[in-house]
Amino acid sequence: MTTTHSACSVHSAALAIDDAVRARREAGHDVLHLGFGEAGLPVAPGLAEALADAHLRNGYGSVAGSPHARTAAAGWFVRRGLPTEPEHILFAPGSKPLLFALLAAIGGDVVLPCPAWVSYAAQAALFGRRVISVPVPSEAGGIPDPDLLDQALRQAKADGARPGVLILTIPDNPTGTIAPTEHVKAVCAIAERHGLALISDEIYAELSHHGTAPSPVQHLPDRTVVTTGLSKSLALGGWRIGLVRTPAGRWGRRLQQEVTGIASEIWSSLAAPMQAVATHALSDPPDVTAHIAAARRLHACIAADVHTRLAAAGAHCRPPQAGFYLYPDFAPAREALRTQGITTGTDLATTLLDRHGIATLPGSAFGEPDAALTLRVATSLLYGATPQQRHTALTTEEPQTLPWIAPALHRLSSALGEILNVTR
Amino acid sequence: MTTTHSACSVHSAALAIDDAVRARREAGHDVLHLGFGEAGLPVAPGLAEALADAHLRNGYGSVAGSPHARTAAAGWFVRRGLPTEPEHILFAPGSKPLLFALLAAIGGDVVLPCPAWVSYAAQAALFGRRVISVPVPSEAGGIPDPDLLDQALRQAKADGARPGVLILTIPDNPTGTIAPTEHVKAVCAIAERHGLALISDEIYAELSHHGTAPSPVQHLPDRTVVTTGLSKSLALGGWRIGLVRTPAGRWGRRLQQEVTGIASEIWSSLAAPMQAVATHALSDPPDVTAHIAAARRLHACIAADVHTRLAAAGAHCRPPQAGFYLYPDFAPAREALRTQGITTGTDLATTLLDRHGIATLPGSAFGEPDAALTLRVATSLLYGATPQQRHTALTTEEPQTLPWIAPALHRLSSALGEILNVTR
Repeated sequence: MTTTHSACSVHSAALAIDDAVRARREAGHDVLHLGFGEAGLPVAPGLAEALADAHLRNGYGSVAGSPHARTAAAGWFVRRGLPTEPEHILFAPGSKPLLFALLAAIGGDVVLPCPAWVSYAAQAALFGRRVISVPVPSEAGGIPDPDLLDQALRQAKADGARPGVLILTIPDNPTGTIAPTEHVKAVCAIAERHGLALISDEIYAELSHHGTAPSPVQHLPDRTVVTTGLSKSLALGGWRIGLVRTPAGRWGRRLQQEVTGIASEIWSSLAAPMQAVATHALSDPPDVTAHIAAARRLHACIAADVHTRLAAAGAHCRPPQAGFYLYPDFAPAREALRTQGITTGTDLATTLLDRHGIATLPGSAFGEPDAALTLRVATSLLYGATPQQRHTALTTEEPQTLPWIAPALHRLSSALGEILNVTR
Repeated sequence: MTTTHSACSVHSAALAIDDAVRARREAGHDVLHLGFGEAGLPVAPGLAEALADAHLRNGYGSVAGSPHARTAAAGWFVRRGLPTEPEHILFAPGSKPLLFALLAAIGGDVVLPCPAWVSYAAQAALFGRRVISVPVPSEAGGIPDPDLLDQALRQAKADGARPGVLILTIPDNPTGTIAPTEHVKAVCAIAERHGLALISDEIYAELSHHGTAPSPVQHLPDRTVVTTGLSKSLALGGWRIGLVRTPAGRWGRRLQQEVTGIASEIWSSLAAPMQAVATHALSDPPDVTAHIAAARRLHACIAADVHTRLAAAGAHCRPPQAGFYLYPDFAPAREALRTQGITTGTDLATTLLDRHGIATLPGSAFGEPDAALTLRVATSLLYGATPQQRHTALTTEEPQTLPWIAPALHRLSSALGEILNVTR
């Protein structure tokens, strides 16, 4: 870390908004929380039992994970079309520490799509690395526009940067979209030409609304590392279960060793009871896969409803394809917003929170210039305030009509209408 | 990280020996494992229930920990004589990530006692920081010799180093000893004069065999950060529960903020079910404190027995005062060892493992020159191979006579006798 104190004045924007909302609620405010990517659903059947049954596992285990857990994870990837051995797997308390360790091990400056998830750039800053930020194409986020990537890399090198690793998010947070296969292929070819390693953050892969998402590992198998976890598909953010699949081959073996070394010095291992949970969940038992399928349907339904409302309010917004995010751009309403004193994404998010009690994150949290009138809208905390409400949302046919969801959706439309002076 | 690839070729020596022993055992070898600081005891009553009862807590929580958990931890410190508010507490998956985040936040080169726990220097290397290593006094480890510290700091500064933080381990790993209060006081005064922050790693504090250990926080309250966890006192290494107490005052508040920021980007939070376990354990319920008291007695008894055997074999070894470690120095037998081809600590550890199936760690793993004929001997994996054996060891009057412990102790004496040509 080259700029110790300044680099450490970071605080994940996503977690910060969650803390801020919690504080407002504790002070008695009614907040509609669209600011945080928590899956907001109950624990799948079988997982509580797996956790409780593991209470005898109190000893330190292998850094990378137990043979059982690594074997289950390898099988999980194999069933999804990726030949994988247990020794390619490493578990951690979330995928965040794995991304951190991968950046440490791979080295070099970090190439990101713009917008990109909040923590990639923050982690790069902790290492004093440069970020080379390349806009996403209009079709979908999570991937640099292939037409801009090569030029951006040449320019960065000319400016003295040493690009080492490109991070893709497929499906994407913040845009809730899936990069098309031809873009993934094109980006892999450019990355290979420039000698970049690829980190493919696929933590939303199980939540593709329809069909599956393409993975760069199909196109650049020896240099692509896949990270994932159970926080999103199984709504286990609070259980902190992440894993990485390193590639076969010499580079991948060395990387696995180095990440294991770093893990041993920073976090030792994923908690053994959580490894037991992962072992169960990653074996794809029918009740777990049914739970994920129900979650997928719910996410798709509510995200589509919110998309309609954002479009009605006049925003540009890519139709959601995965997970529980939308990324509206209010540029078409720039003039109307200016009359309200709103000229930046931060202004817009602040107005939504202060005047309407609606929490979102501005695009600047994801690397965009603040002049962009973009927001990330997370829909997954709409599902209910109690386990019972969430369970109902998960199992009902038309969740958008539920009495605790419909008013929240209406409140969003009203607030946008008021801010944008749209008669509805 | 300035030297990315080389810095990452680390692997915690402590975890590496554990992995190596596991592999040997899987290959059918009978290994006496004295290489790893795992507390080797059953889970205390009430903790399994706390874990199971927390299965509904699947959402992300506050980065620093839940209000319940932070309040319980503050109370725990208050009952141990340290005024502490919940906002001074931050939880993490182990104390290791906290030490890492503290080094990141505090900045500067790292002053360590020599020998010191394996991961301090490795973490400093990950940040490209220098390590200023100062020998411990003859009385006890975990603290630089006060007579050498001032001079070492002056010399380091003259050499261009920028000492920023001093890490103390009280009680100590690897020596199993407790720094005397007057040394702690003297070291605090020197640290203050040089503007150093102090990290006091007190993870063994509950395992002081007799009486309590002194804390530098009593002498330098505004600049001392205390780290601890449940891995040692409650044998919960595999559950990964660590916490830090940052000081009151401006510096402490800023540090708490910065560590929270770093935590939010690297690990998000301690798993919520583990926070529930911590909340219960740190409230000092009688069955938990009785469990710790029994563990303390067992550790003291076996460590004392092993100390007698090491002394009989001709080693210099400080009498154990806390935890489950001894740190014998075989320098008095240097000539006898040379006749066996053993001239370094690594030679000695390798001979013990290869010829006698006894795993230890050489002093070089703890920062000593390899010429030192020192070993760290951890006694806590002698207690049994099954939960039942461990439970018996924990509750019996004379654990050293148990049929699975006595032969292991004898095997250690025999091996040392054979290597050192001592007739016993």
